[in-house]
Parts: sequence; structure tokens; C-alpha cells
Amino acid sequence: MRVYLDHAATTPLRAEAREAWLAAHEVLGNPSSIHGAGQDARRLLEDARDGLAEVLGCQSIEVVLTSGGTEAANLALKGLWWAREPGARAVVLPDGEHHATLDVVGWLAASQEAEVRSVPLDPVGRIDGDSFAAALPGTALATALVANNEVGTIQDAAGLAAAASGAGIPLHLDAVSALGQIPVDFAAWRGAVSARGGLVAMSVSAHKVGGPVGVGAAVVSRHATMTPLLHGGGQQRGLRAGTQDVAGAAAFAAAARAAEAERERESARLAALRDRLVSGILHSIPAARLLGDPHDRLPGNAHVLFPDAAGETLLFLLDMAGVAVSTGSACQAGVAEPSHVVLALGHDDRAARSVLRFTLGHTSTADDVESVLARLPDAYARAVASGASGARSAGRS
Amino acid sequence: MRVYLDHAATTPLRAEAREAWLAAHEVLGNPSSIHGAGQDARRLLEDARDGLAEVLGCQSIEVVLTSGGTEAANLALKGLWWAREPGARAVVLPDGEHHATLDVVGWLAASQEAEVRSVPLDPVGRIDGDSFAAALPGTALATALVANNEVGTIQDAAGLAAAASGAGIPLHLDAVSALGQIPVDFAAWRGAVSARGGLVAMSVSAHKVGGPVGVGAAVVSRHATMTPLLHGGGQQRGLRAGTQDVAGAAAFAAAARAAEAERERESARLAALRDRLVSGILHSIPAARLLGDPHDRLPGNAHVLFPDAAGETLLFLLDMAGVAVSTGSACQAGVAEPSHVVLALGHDDRAARSVLRFTLGHTSTADDVESVLARLPDAYARAVASGASGARSAGRS
Repeated sequence: MRVYLDHAATTPLRAEAREAWLAAHEVLGNPSSIHGAGQDARRLLEDARDGLAEVLGCQSIEVVLTSGGTEAANLALKGLWWAREPGARAVVLPDGEHHATLDVVGWLAASQEAEVRSVPLDPVGRIDGDSFAAALPGTALATALVANNEVGTIQDAAGLAAAASGAGIPLHLDAVSALGQIPVDFAAWRGAVSARGGLVAMSVSAHKVGGPVGVGAAVVSRHATMTPLLHGGGQQRGLRAGTQDVAGAAAFAAAARAAEAERERESARLAALRDRLVSGILHSIPAARLLGDPHDRLPGNAHVLFPDAAGETLLFLLDMAGVAVSTGSACQAGVAEPSHVVLALGHDDRAARSVLRFTLGHTSTADDVESVLARLPDAYARAVASGASGARSAGRS
Repeated sequence: MRVYLDHAATTPLRAEAREAWLAAHEVLGNPSSIHGAGQDARRLLEDARDGLAEVLGCQSIEVVLTSGGTEAANLALKGLWWAREPGARAVVLPDGEHHATLDVVGWLAASQEAEVRSVPLDPVGRIDGDSFAAALPGTALATALVANNEVGTIQDAAGLAAAASGAGIPLHLDAVSALGQIPVDFAAWRGAVSARGGLVAMSVSAHKVGGPVGVGAAVVSRHATMTPLLHGGGQQRGLRAGTQDVAGAAAFAAAARAAEAERERESARLAALRDRLVSGILHSIPAARLLGDPHDRLPGNAHVLFPDAAGETLLFLLDMAGVAVSTGSACQAGVAEPSHVVLALGHDDRAARSVLRFTLGHTSTADDVESVLARLPDAYARAVASGASGARSAGRS
């Protein structure tokens, strides 16, 4: 039996999303066309936007459809940067953020004259609220993850938004990993609307909740001042040009609604499975440690440090045993890099290469968990042995 | 019977694309994941990339998947701009380009210190080759449509590429409206590779050839120097971050291959239908005129000037009669604007508001054409009458 515990990387398409995608293709027309066919397509699109707005706690007009979470974050951060108050140059960036915001801010710093103002994480991955508030004054914008995509720690989104509102600084929240797992409510988090500041943008992605890959949204407050990232035909309030993907939007809305409808029940079910997984791991491998916040964490997330084992080796051995997990770190070029999130928690480089992320989702079962627990000890023993022989080899060379 | 002659806006999803999209979802995994599930997804993705490369006449590694033609053009132009030679500030922009490049260059000029160097069109919409070549020296980059999306005129893509190569200036070609209609061959157009100049990027879109909306590609030469538009995980040579849409890519490749396989036969069929449509229109409405190049034009395109009739009124009347066409101009806000393409052909503002674009595609039939010809004269007479009464009203006020 193959076991897939990498739902944070992508999770299976829900039947509701598949049906919505297929049904949308029964309607032919570009929603920007003014003839009847175009208007039929536009109605489908606006229904989808309404559905997403309801799930996200925002107004329909605030839903800017994108090609995914990465584009949404790029739009929000670059768009706020290019429309910033004159003179403001700093961007508030907590440690351990996702590459979709980290690398955007890095580019703004490298080539657009931005300055990075970092905010530390505590040992379980929480953003230090006082440091965050203290970093805000005089900056161009701030960004933060609602929940860390690697270690699963949930932040105080409303508190971060209140701090940004108080300081009058525009805030982007990356809710990609949070949607469908915990309550996501743009209006509730935003609270009272201040002139320019506070929560003005939020990123989400369809394929993390059982929608298709290639679809996402930036919630952009009606009060935000933002430069578009994609210029062209003035679709979507002029904020995002390009033919609007009616079928993708309909599928995203269907998936988001389905995920939201079952969220409370699913969260409890996944958290119980996850707790069983963690306690089983810690029982069979006493040296292992759960990273991230032990309480305020995503229900489907178990992020475990395995001292003396290289995460990538363990990943390969588990994969050979039919279990798909992640090291939690970006590994685009096939080179294992230490997790910048684990480093931000205060661990050393070796620890940051010795972690695995297990993420459960809507198709996960108790059998999945028991299968992993049955296969992990052997893989761990082999990974430790491999590391020890590697160290001996290195010592001899 | 409803007749859809707006295939240039969007064309029905092909069965091959639907099947490929559904089949891709049988494979679960993020193609950037290093476990077996991820690698299964990656194989599907690379097969799709290979298929697209074959259709587009480029190497697989040169296919950068995007969310559509607009993102591809934004990536190419902004990416080349940010990576330009120091000191170069001008962008060569022919008149009558698509908004996806026109508005990008406009933004570069308004906020990134670019200067626009225009190139005129001749009366049938051809880019003046000598003016184009003369505009190139010392510029940062150049862009051009392979075929005009409104009036259908086909440019000498190889000639434009040769001029750019000779001048050492990077060129982007927008092939969105050309793909599936005429031969599109990146390597053949590029010719010999020069240091930085010549054809280095080309944009295409899936939903114009029967693939899904929300999928496209920028062909980016291995020799190009380009800054990414979307930063994040370093997918796709670091040029385009974001989880790669395997199902979208597979569907695009299936549609592009199907369109290419039938292109010669379909082009002849559509051109014959289009010629019947044009001759029928000119016969029943002698005042009407075909705009664009009468010979070198997209086979599915008929772009007609109806003197004394407002294009938008005619569009509405035809829509009420069950015929979907386009005015050919962007009409995002519901406000009819004169076509900047028709203006670029040397017509006045009134003419630029008196045009209709009829575009045929893979589902078009001879019955469609006869239905339009049967319904058009009455709609035209009403539109003329409406315009005359509107003019009288305006005269009285």
C-alpha cells in the first residue's frame, strides 16, 4: 500500500472541483466578451467569486483570481511596494516565511531598493508580536504567514493585523497553508479599516484545498493601493490582466466550499490521526522531537526532527517503502538544503537537514498512519547507519 | 440556432485536452517533490513540455509554462527590461499591438523609466520592416505580434527576428493569435543565435487552440537573460516560480498537438468559410469593407468596417439574433472605445468604432456562416437607423 503524507505539497482534486470544472466548459465564452455567451460565462465566474468571498470572509469584488498562491503573493508584495508611500523603503519580513514571499522581498531588496526588516520567531515558530509591532513604523509594507507551511505553527493573524492597522502599514497575510485547515476570515482579521494600513491583502491557493493547480486568489481590500503585476486588458479592477479562468474559478470555489463545510469535523479527525502519528513516532524513536508549536499548529501537520538521520536519506528510504513525505525544505535542484524555517527556530545546520514533514489531508486514513508507523523504524535505522558510515567515510578521506 | 464567431476571444475545449486534464489528475503529486509520486507527476509534466516544444519549434527546456498569454508577455517584456544592457532605455513597440504588450510597455514607460519607440503600420496592418529595423539600434528590447489579433494581418516574423538579430536587440514575439492558425516555429524564425539579440522570447496561450484557460507558455531562449516576474521556489530555470500545473500543461500540449496536426487542412477549410463570409457580407452590404491584409491574414479572421453603423450596436443586434461576434476592441468597463488597431491603419475615430471582428474556429461550420449572412443585413439596417436617429437626437439637444 502506498501512503501519501505530503498533502501540504498538493492534495487530491475533490470530486466537487472536477465536476465544477467540467460543467463550466459546457458554457462557451470569454467572460470579458459583451455578447450573451460572454455574459453566461461571466455569471459563472461571478458565482465562483461569490462562493470564494463567502469562504474567505471578504467582499466578492475583493477576490482577485490568480494562477496560484505564488502569483498572489507576488502581486500583493510587489503591488504594494510599487504603490508605497514616498520615502518608505523597509519591508517587514518575519523569519521562516515561505519562499513565495521571502524571494519576492529578496528581489525587492536586491534590485528595487527595498530594505528588509526581519522579525524573529520563538523556538516553536511563533512570530514575536512585540518585535513585529516595533518593526512596523515607517515601513512600506509587512508580510506574514498565517500558519507556517513547514512546521505548522499558527500565528495570531488578528493580532498582526491589529498591529499593522495601528501603525498604518499595509499588511499581506499568506494564508495558503491555512485555508481549509483553520478558520480564515479576512474581514474579522482586518477589523476596523484604517486609511492605508492594516490587513489589505491575503493570498490563497486552490490546490491546497482540493481544487486544481494553477488557480489561486489574492484578496485585495477595496481600500488598498496596489500596482498590478500583470498588465493588459483591464480585467479584475485593473489589478490582474489576462482572460479570466472561469472553469478554474468554479473548481476553486467548489473545493473551497467543500473544504470549509467539513473543516471543523475534518480538523478534529486529522488532528487525532496526526497525534497518533506523532506519539507513535516518539514511542518507537525516542530521540525524535516534534518541532513547531505543540498546541497551535495545523491539524494535518507533523514536523519531526530525527537526530542522526539526514532528512533526505530518510525521505528516500520511506519512498522506497511506499511512503511519500517531504523534508519540508525547497529542493528544486535536487540539492538538499537546510530548512531556513528550522534554522529560524534556533536549531543548527545539522538539525535543519534532519527533519521530515508529514502532512495529512482529506483522503488520509488511520491505515495510512499505521502503515507509516510500521515502516518508519526500519527506515530510520538505515538512515542513521547510512549517516554514520558516511561520517566514517568522510573521516577517512 | 446560436452561432459563435468569436473564436479569437476563446474557443471550445477540445476533447483531447479534456481527457488529458482528467488523466493527469489520476497521478497525485507535486512535480517538485522528490518522492516517487512527485516524480510520476514530473514525468507527465515533462512529456507535456516535450509535446509543446515540438509544436513550437523550440527545445523543451525553453518552454516556460505560465498562466496564459498575458503572463507570458509580461514575463518576457518586464523580464527582458529588468535584465537589459546598462544604459538602454527604449522599447520598440509597433502600433496596433495587443494590450498584453502595449500596456506592459506603457507601465515600463510610466514608472520604470522606459522610452517608447513606435513603429507604424501600413494601411493593411503590416509592420513597416524598414522602420522596425531602423528603430532597433541602442534599444533595450523589441516586441511584435506575429499576427494582429484584431485585423488578422500576418507579419514577417522571420524578417523581424533577423532585423533584431542583426541589431543585437532582444525580440519578443506575441504568437498567441497565430498558434494553430499559421506555422509557428521559434527556431526557424530565430535563425542563427547572436550574443544577446534576435528572437529570444515568444508568448502562446492554450485556450486559443482548444486548451484550457489559465495556461500558456513563454518560450525563453537558453541564451536569453531574463528576470523572473514571479519569485519563489526556483521552478522552471528560476524564471517562473509557483507549483507547476501538470494537468494544465498536459491539456495544453494535447490541444496544441491536435491543432497542429489538423492545421493545414483546417486553415484551408476556415479560409474558405471566411472568404464565403466576407464575400457574402460585401455582397449584401456594399458599403462594408474588409480591413487588414486581404491575402496574408489569419485564416479564421474577417474584420469588417461597417460605415454608418456603430460596431457595438451591431454587436448587440447580432447577439439578439443569436450571433456572437466581437468589436475587436477591449471593452472592459462596458464603454465602447475606438479600436487602437483600426486607428493605426489610418482610419478615423468614427471608423474605429464601426468595426466587427468575426473569428472562426475548429467547431465552425458552413451553416454558421450562412446563418450570419442571413441575419446580418437586418441587423445592419437597424444599426444604421439607430445611429441616424441618435445623430438626430444629438443634433436636437
